[in-house]
Amino acid sequence: MTNQQNSANSTATWIWYPGDYEIWLGNKVNNRRTDRGAFFPPFWKQDSHYVTVEFSTTLSLAKEETVTLAAEGKYNIKIDGKMLFGMPSRLVLPAGEHKLNIKVWNQLTPPALFVEGETVHTDGTWKVTNEDKEWIDDSGKASDTSASVYMDAGYWNFNTIDELPSQFKLTRQHQEPVAMEPKSNGRLYDFGKETFGYLHFDGVKGTGIIYVYYGESAEEAQDKDFCETLDQFEVKQDGTMVDLQSNTPFTDGITPNNKAFRYVYIECDDTVTVDRVSMEYEYLPVDIRGSFKCNDEEVNQMWNIGIYTLHLTTREFFIDGIKRDRWTWSGDAYQSYLMNYYLFFNSECVKRTTWQLRGKDPVTAHINTIMDYTFYWFMGIYDYYLYTGDAHFVTQIYPRMQTLMEYVLGRTNSNGMVEGQSGDWVFVDWSPKPMSKQGELSFEQILLCKSLETMALCAEIAGEGDDHLRFERLANHLRKQLLPTFWDATRHALVHSVPSDCRMPSTDAAITRYANMFAIFFDYLDEQQKKEVMEHVLHNDAIMPITTPYMRFYEMEAMCKMGEQADVLRQMKDYWGGMIRNGATTFWEAYDPNAENHLSMYGRPYGKSLCHAWGASPIYLLGRYFMGVEPTKPGYEEYDVRPSLGGLKWIEGSVPTPNGAIVLRMDENRIIIKSTEGLGHLHLPGRDVIDIPAGEMVSIEY
Amino acid sequence: MTNQQNSANSTATWIWYPGDYEIWLGNKVNNRRTDRGAFFPPFWKQDSHYVTVEFSTTLSLAKEETVTLAAEGKYNIKIDGKMLFGMPSRLVLPAGEHKLNIKVWNQLTPPALFVEGETVHTDGTWKVTNEDKEWIDDSGKASDTSASVYMDAGYWNFNTIDELPSQFKLTRQHQEPVAMEPKSNGRLYDFGKETFGYLHFDGVKGTGIIYVYYGESAEEAQDKDFCETLDQFEVKQDGTMVDLQSNTPFTDGITPNNKAFRYVYIECDDTVTVDRVSMEYEYLPVDIRGSFKCNDEEVNQMWNIGIYTLHLTTREFFIDGIKRDRWTWSGDAYQSYLMNYYLFFNSECVKRTTWQLRGKDPVTAHINTIMDYTFYWFMGIYDYYLYTGDAHFVTQIYPRMQTLMEYVLGRTNSNGMVEGQSGDWVFVDWSPKPMSKQGELSFEQILLCKSLETMALCAEIAGEGDDHLRFERLANHLRKQLLPTFWDATRHALVHSVPSDCRMPSTDAAITRYANMFAIFFDYLDEQQKKEVMEHVLHNDAIMPITTPYMRFYEMEAMCKMGEQADVLRQMKDYWGGMIRNGATTFWEAYDPNAENHLSMYGRPYGKSLCHAWGASPIYLLGRYFMGVEPTKPGYEEYDVRPSLGGLKWIEGSVPTPNGAIVLRMDENRIIIKSTEGLGHLHLPGRDVIDIPAGEMVSIEY
Repeated sequence: MTNQQNSANSTATWIWYPGDYEIWLGNKVNNRRTDRGAFFPPFWKQDSHYVTVEFSTTLSLAKEETVTLAAEGKYNIKIDGKMLFGMPSRLVLPAGEHKLNIKVWNQLTPPALFVEGETVHTDGTWKVTNEDKEWIDDSGKASDTSASVYMDAGYWNFNTIDELPSQFKLTRQHQEPVAMEPKSNGRLYDFGKETFGYLHFDGVKGTGIIYVYYGESAEEAQDKDFCETLDQFEVKQDGTMVDLQSNTPFTDGITPNNKAFRYVYIECDDTVTVDRVSMEYEYLPVDIRGSFKCNDEEVNQMWNIGIYTLHLTTREFFIDGIKRDRWTWSGDAYQSYLMNYYLFFNSECVKRTTWQLRGKDPVTAHINTIMDYTFYWFMGIYDYYLYTGDAHFVTQIYPRMQTLMEYVLGRTNSNGMVEGQSGDWVFVDWSPKPMSKQGELSFEQILLCKSLETMALCAEIAGEGDDHLRFERLANHLRKQLLPTFWDATRHALVHSVPSDCRMPSTDAAITRYANMFAIFFDYLDEQQKKEVMEHVLHNDAIMPITTPYMRFYEMEAMCKMGEQADVLRQMKDYWGGMIRNGATTFWEAYDPNAENHLSMYGRPYGKSLCHAWGASPIYLLGRYFMGVEPTKPGYEEYDVRPSLGGLKWIEGSVPTPNGAIVLRMDENRIIIKSTEGLGHLHLPGRDVIDIPAGEMVSIEY
Repeated sequence: MTNQQNSANSTATWIWYPGDYEIWLGNKVNNRRTDRGAFFPPFWKQDSHYVTVEFSTTLSLAKEETVTLAAEGKYNIKIDGKMLFGMPSRLVLPAGEHKLNIKVWNQLTPPALFVEGETVHTDGTWKVTNEDKEWIDDSGKASDTSASVYMDAGYWNFNTIDELPSQFKLTRQHQEPVAMEPKSNGRLYDFGKETFGYLHFDGVKGTGIIYVYYGESAEEAQDKDFCETLDQFEVKQDGTMVDLQSNTPFTDGITPNNKAFRYVYIECDDTVTVDRVSMEYEYLPVDIRGSFKCNDEEVNQMWNIGIYTLHLTTREFFIDGIKRDRWTWSGDAYQSYLMNYYLFFNSECVKRTTWQLRGKDPVTAHINTIMDYTFYWFMGIYDYYLYTGDAHFVTQIYPRMQTLMEYVLGRTNSNGMVEGQSGDWVFVDWSPKPMSKQGELSFEQILLCKSLETMALCAEIAGEGDDHLRFERLANHLRKQLLPTFWDATRHALVHSVPSDCRMPSTDAAITRYANMFAIFFDYLDEQQKKEVMEHVLHNDAIMPITTPYMRFYEMEAMCKMGEQADVLRQMKDYWGGMIRNGATTFWEAYDPNAENHLSMYGRPYGKSLCHAWGASPIYLLGRYFMGVEPTKPGYEEYDVRPSLGGLKWIEGSVPTPNGAIVLRMDENRIIIKSTEGLGHLHLPGRDVIDIPAGEMVSIEY
């Protein structure tokens, strides 16, 4: 469903200050990480909700109406400025035009409100503020220059009075292990594939400690000294069980801690026995709206493993991976968003993650402390608008875009470029060899430039004309400097970096793939330069290779943009196929086909995450560059289709749109497309563009 | 006790992020206001604590040490970067040099920590941060450019492991009413004087509702329709009682709501009876360290009523009054601070109130939304330093002074002056006739100038040399404009305001007392101008009189500065004496000797507060301008004494200093002074300055 503005819902829903629920929920989620039984919160700041929020609406009632009311927090109610006694849960609203204001205070969870009557109910049309600035003069008259900032209420899908937003939980499903094997002093359980959830103990007898070691691999689970996650549970005399890491009791034999694992190794004190161990799988209910199939079963398997990888990491938020951090990381999330548009088209999770990552003002660090991650955050917002057409969200979040961009601009050097300052993590990628993070990195300037362009676009959507012009000017200014600063014509490439006191690339400056591939699909190079980059960088084995699916995502994208789907397919089968041949049931954080050990990372034997969202890029590549569908006007009002078999015999599938889908089948002779909405433009090499009107099947032989 | 820096305490104390406990406690206090049974939080933003805080210290232990540990929140422990399993409450610290880091997460109450061992314990030397920015590279190595901002830990007096900061409560004392009288359908209880606390019910029988109406006057308590505060309590079948406003149960027959009252009128449903009603008086335990006595019993009574008024409003924070707002208001608090230095010398309450009023960044409004109240906030910090010598506090709060001043400077006009913008409450005072709040008010510029001077002084204390120069320059620039802009030489006065496009006072501009009296004691006028102002403004009945004790405080101060103690004494006996003759047991929010009704304000019959901190100014005037004591170097390292009988036959008393007192007795022939610390300088008219060395009694005949 499109969500062009916060329209009046037909039914009541719980409302809150926009972004606040997301930020609060983010703290819960990000603070669930444990590291070998220790609580492990993020190292960046954690914001929180506004503790006191005023909700308001104007009433225009033909007749008196009785509404029921509930709030999460202590509250008061004003009708036309007059406060009512106490905290009534039923309210008689008088006929006629009236103002209704409800103020809620809650330190623990976000102030939230639910009102339901015959015609009056809480929805996204209500206004909220965290400071009403309503002072009175000595006669008791209220001020008339309050300058309060009112936002439209935030909401999700808590649509009955009993579904308290603070009590939200993901869905659970009971699952049994596929195998159990006695090992040394305990038992090794295998759940058959990578999974996530809560262990479930049945038939526990005696008293003492149960020691649990989790593993994404059998090796990890059995390595008591080095597995990344573990638990200790105490069985008490009354039979109750307690998690000793968090001092939290079990419910019905189920642990309070969710964990990622395929294998679980369990040892018990001699005084305790356990009959059966199973699990409660935990997941976000999503519709799988995108589909893909082709004649190559390995590619189909990649699509399916991609679905499962992305589903496991699509939760309260798009998180990086399920074993270790389980945090919201902006660069990771940005790729999840793009994959999501070709699979779940789950707008709510994109919005939640965007609010959560941004947090509150003041900005005191880059998002996740990473400079590049700040830029992906901006870029994700315009993408979201383009895929969904939801201008309202852009308008709501625009003030936080402004303050974040002011932070960025406050850290540019005299050339208007960003360099890592103290406290900035200049990440780019995990690389097999050290890369410089000093001076002006071409990669960071390209992302900054794109972010400024994004600001200009979003300013226009938010109706901020002055900002639009200002950011357009800043973007153009930077854009004009990019090539003079970084392009090395002799070597046919953008260099990795230049010192900030130098205005041209040095002949011995390193060349890396990052800036070059982004410059291709951002169209920052001309066609000749793009071809040079393909030859001298992307197809040049002397240039440091990329070993994370994270940056391979963009490398493949650049190649697809250049029409090299056949090569991409070959590399996909080699790289993602390689993981599958190494037993992957979900895609990994990093993969080096030449490495012997696929489990270690960060100097730890099982440091690598074996279910990492950024591993699932085949979803995006197949949707966007094989089925070839991309929106060209917001919310698929118009879109392009540039299908490519890339050497496959046939492909078929569907790409979700806000209210429907574009269904496509292509083989070596014919392409058939039908969509439920929007005007499509089919681009086939050597042919005029063919329009695809909504609802009509277009079948083309070629 | 002076608190020059956050020194190592000899015993353990609970610690937190500085200011966070105060901001959190402030929400609890400010949100206790009720208005006729409705929850009534402030209309300005309410900030909250950082939910995740890292505490750290470095250890240097001769031998291994076992410590006990408790936290308010979920926590982890790192020794030399290695996290321990779970949340241990005992910890073995190894001998040698080590780093100890503990991270605590708490959404509901401020993360707080208590560690106690033989030599290791939490105190103000621990460091805290809300973002440690400790990322790792792909080898697992921690970043070395984190740029985290570390503050010294905040603490108060929670010195045992069981005294959880979040559980803090003021002290209570049982008190009985002095009279009970049946009235109409209920009973009127009189507690003999203004008081504050919780009603206590004994011998309650039956089931039904008890209706309670509070009054600072007997009239108010008996006016069910217009009394400012009321309660409804339900007696349930099992005998338990519930407050219906907040749905909170009673404890031992005591209400959960504290209220201000002298009188309480109670009606019950026919189905309920109450045997006895008493109260639990609630107060902050303070030492009354200042004293004053003289030959005039009315003046002594003023001093004593001042003590009681100030004590009732000196609580978790210095609040405005106890009946209605019970909020922290910066302009009110500023006067409480000054009175406090001559009575309780309670440094902790000054610091708590200063942190609480300021809140967190970003600054989105003036303090309490009032422009003048922002300026008093700055001024209060340097005063605190001057009286206590506590440079550490200035350094800790300096970053919030900076950001607040940036907000102010961001709202100055092209003349560098402040004008009320949308959302700014330009208060000045409650005045008997309307006064202009438009254009450049001389009063606001004078406060801004003093605030800039304060910034310059505090920047120097905080070691911020560039800021020191910048604010000194800004203050000088503004100072030089004050007289050219506002001084009307013809009328011998500063005019109230000028339009912002006009660079000189108009001959028909209004003249008010505010700017003129501040310019006297800020020394912004020369001696001749001061005399002119006294004659043409302060002693001119044609100029609008002041009817609040709030601004009379400064009016009296200006007169004292000009040596007019005798006139001040006369006016005190007239004005504060007038309240006493009208039955005051505490001093009021406003008093017009000519008014018939002393209860109404804000268009409400009992809107006026009859126990208002700013009413207690005789405390300050008698201490500072009759006993005549004021510090001239921080923490009374040096001080002046300029005693004045002001027409009294004798005065005697003591003025508290950080670690002692200055004791003084004076009659028409002799003055005797002795102090426990600091070097005093006694100024007597027509005589050379006489030094008062600490510990020596100085006795002078004149």
